[in-house]
Amino acid sequence: RLEQLMEPLHAADIADLLEQIDSDDREALVRLWPQGIDGDVLSELDESIREEVVELLPQDVLAEAVRDLDSDDVVDLVEDLEEPQQERILQALEDSDRVAVQQSLTYPEYSAGRLMQREVVALPEHWTVGEAIDYLRSASELPDQFYHIILVDPRWHPVGQVGLGRLLASPRATPLKDIAEEDFRVIRVFDEEADVAYLFNQYHLISAPVVDDSGRLVGVITIDDAMTVLDEEAEEDILRLAGVGEEGGLSGRLIDTVRDRAVWLFVNLLTAILASMVINQFADTIDQLVALAVLMPIVASMGGNAGTQTMTVAVRAIATRDLTPRNAMRMIWREITVGTANGMLFGVLMALVAGFWFGIPMLSVVIAVAMLFTLVAAACGGILIPLLLDRFGIDPALASGPFVTTVTDVVGFFAFLGLASSVLL
Amino acid sequence: RLEQLMEPLHAADIADLLEQIDSDDREALVRLWPQGIDGDVLSELDESIREEVVELLPQDVLAEAVRDLDSDDVVDLVEDLEEPQQERILQALEDSDRVAVQQSLTYPEYSAGRLMQREVVALPEHWTVGEAIDYLRSASELPDQFYHIILVDPRWHPVGQVGLGRLLASPRATPLKDIAEEDFRVIRVFDEEADVAYLFNQYHLISAPVVDDSGRLVGVITIDDAMTVLDEEAEEDILRLAGVGEEGGLSGRLIDTVRDRAVWLFVNLLTAILASMVINQFADTIDQLVALAVLMPIVASMGGNAGTQTMTVAVRAIATRDLTPRNAMRMIWREITVGTANGMLFGVLMALVAGFWFGIPMLSVVIAVAMLFTLVAAACGGILIPLLLDRFGIDPALASGPFVTTVTDVVGFFAFLGLASSVLL
Ligand SMILES: [Mg+2]
Ligand SMILES: [Mg+2]
Ligand SMILES: [Mg+2]
Ligand SMILES: [Mg+2]
Ligand SMILES: [Mg+2]
Ligand SMILES: [Mg+2]
Ligand SMILES: [Mg+2]
Ligand SMILES: [Mg+2]
Ligand SMILES: [Mg+2]
Ligand SMILES: [Mg+2]
Ligand SMILES: [Mg+2]
Ligand SMILES: [Mg+2]
Ligand SMILES: [Mg+2]
Repeated sequence: RLEQLMEPLHAADIADLLEQIDSDDREALVRLWPQGIDGDVLSELDESIREEVVELLPQDVLAEAVRDLDSDDVVDLVEDLEEPQQERILQALEDSDRVAVQQSLTYPEYSAGRLMQREVVALPEHWTVGEAIDYLRSASELPDQFYHIILVDPRWHPVGQVGLGRLLASPRATPLKDIAEEDFRVIRVFDEEADVAYLFNQYHLISAPVVDDSGRLVGVITIDDAMTVLDEEAEEDILRLAGVGEEGGLSGRLIDTVRDRAVWLFVNLLTAILASMVINQFADTIDQLVALAVLMPIVASMGGNAGTQTMTVAVRAIATRDLTPRNAMRMIWREITVGTANGMLFGVLMALVAGFWFGIPMLSVVIAVAMLFTLVAAACGGILIPLLLDRFGIDPALASGPFVTTVTDVVGFFAFLGLASSVLL
Repeated sequence: RLEQLMEPLHAADIADLLEQIDSDDREALVRLWPQGIDGDVLSELDESIREEVVELLPQDVLAEAVRDLDSDDVVDLVEDLEEPQQERILQALEDSDRVAVQQSLTYPEYSAGRLMQREVVALPEHWTVGEAIDYLRSASELPDQFYHIILVDPRWHPVGQVGLGRLLASPRATPLKDIAEEDFRVIRVFDEEADVAYLFNQYHLISAPVVDDSGRLVGVITIDDAMTVLDEEAEEDILRLAGVGEEGGLSGRLIDTVRDRAVWLFVNLLTAILASMVINQFADTIDQLVALAVLMPIVASMGGNAGTQTMTVAVRAIATRDLTPRNAMRMIWREITVGTANGMLFGVLMALVAGFWFGIPMLSVVIAVAMLFTLVAAACGGILIPLLLDRFGIDPALASGPFVTTVTDVVGFFAFLGLASSVLL
């Protein structure tokens, strides 16, 4: 019955199902139906629970599961496993596949070398369409997926690629060189996977050859894997901007999630205490006019939100290469202009609100000026901090938040309470 | 000289360049080198400045530019233009292409019908490999991009598809049916593009046929376009979560950006004023113990951050279909557990800090309890609000923020000041 229910599901859906049930159900399911967990399911599984599932599988099922996978999927599967599980999977491979996988594993994590499949279709550049088709028909083993034939010179350097559609539409006598694609990009094995994903998205690539340091063809990356990376990079940025790390999501062990979230909250606590120390400097002022305590969170909150807007736009634009050192100056000015405009707008608005509420004209002036200061500071911090972090090689999505909040909180409280203490009392 | 500089650039890079320079430079560049702005450049351009560029192009250059594009790119190009510019482009097309584009435009925005290209390669299901290859060689016009041959029945309903790699590797006599892919998914023309992108990403599709209400093949969607949608959806979520809308980014007109950001800041202002009204209820309490004013922003800030963590995880998980009504209850409990754990942790931590700082034991107790309440409220609000909004068809990325902030601010201030007023004074 279980098998009838699960059989028609796509590997990716089975993987999602395994991720969404809890640990006990997962174990029960895998024990009941181990042969349903094939290689595709394993490679779709989230890293956080893959280890758990691999441990439950008998060696023969595991061997069966991984043998059909392309090398890139095997690499993705084993790279995050502990040594003993990794060994179990490598054992299960045929010799030639094992060598390919082990070689890929020598490249750094998150590099093109880890993302590529070793299975390529490469032919001499001087061949014709007919020769290519005859070769493909007689080839004993072809990759699961290939969209181009890569043309190589005698030293095995890629010199062009022919799309299969073009190949099929051309007469047998046509030299492959004549129908090679105009736009031909080669990826180096040490390129970062995020850069590879950018290339695929930017130039609408479908597959691209990967070369080693000496320019020799060592593999090929296909768009479906690049799409996965692009998606993961976006996910990482979304979560990091909110102070959630790899373990902070909805799957994985509870204790890891608590710890992951706590790290960020702890950083935020330090920031918040710093802001409180600014307030504490003005304890006497607040003691004399309690309206200040009522209004001060508004200034800080508006600053925090404006800072987050600018910061998020900046972080995303850095990731998509739309914000570069070349146009940074113009964008900084742009943000400062936006901050000034909204600072004036909301300064006036809050002056009116405060006026109606407390009826102290100077208090209205103070909050208006403080709002302007804070929103301009938010704009500066929101764009400069990500740019600086990026310059120093720190992921702006990860680290910008606390700095920006510190700037907006400190400037917000200091401007509002400082002005109040010198003007009002 | 300009031409020498620009000629080797890919269309996508020229588009990025046009986006990154300011309006005057853009006009100068387009006027100097109109023939460099070909169809590919236009379709890569961001909507916010596409109109501006199209207006600058002479009709003959524009006609030349759009004629080579596949129908999906033309649709993408014209759909956001004003009537007169749209007309200019449609005029430039050949009759058959114009009809195809106009038909696509009848489908709703953000539907599969807008995303698909009309150029398909569809063959009768009973043909052989040899017949297919002969047909492709003799076809007068093939799509720029195609990765599958779609098999259709006599009523033009798709019944399967054959990958070009498989086709090339098979003997001429093989029936196409025998080498059709196992996993075959058909997209309906009214499906939302976000769902289409999800399908491609989830099932590693490369291209998929699109059918109309009667099941007839009307077009095909390719992975590069699905990848663009996936990227845009992620971008939209990142920006919306931070309160930035379509016009709030780094390109586009300054005034639009100011307005876009102001809308969100205004909503935040209302939230902040509401929180201030809570504080105002306790003005007397603060007046008696100014330490409360110093500490209260810490509670609210921690609540806000914890709420944002949960909310972001929830919004993202809803988008990736990892949080569904089926597993919602388990995930809600999970978040509440995480919130409780961190609430206790940071409650104790803040009790110690407050103890050292102000030396009032009961104040420490108050802040600890308030912290716990607030972080649990943040967890509840952070996951329930996105789920509810999604249930009512409102984009959780767009609207969750203000609600979650309201919950954490109000609960934070109320718990801390309320407890303080009843216990401390
Ligand atoms: Mg999954
Ligand atoms: Mg594969
Ligand atoms: Mg990996
Ligand atoms: Mg692959
Ligand atoms: Mg990143
Ligand atoms: Mg770009
Ligand atoms: Mg662009
Ligand atoms: Mg195209
Ligand atoms: Mg569009
Ligand atoms: Mg297309
Ligand atoms: Mg959309
Ligand atoms: Mg969305
Ligand atoms: Mg999924």
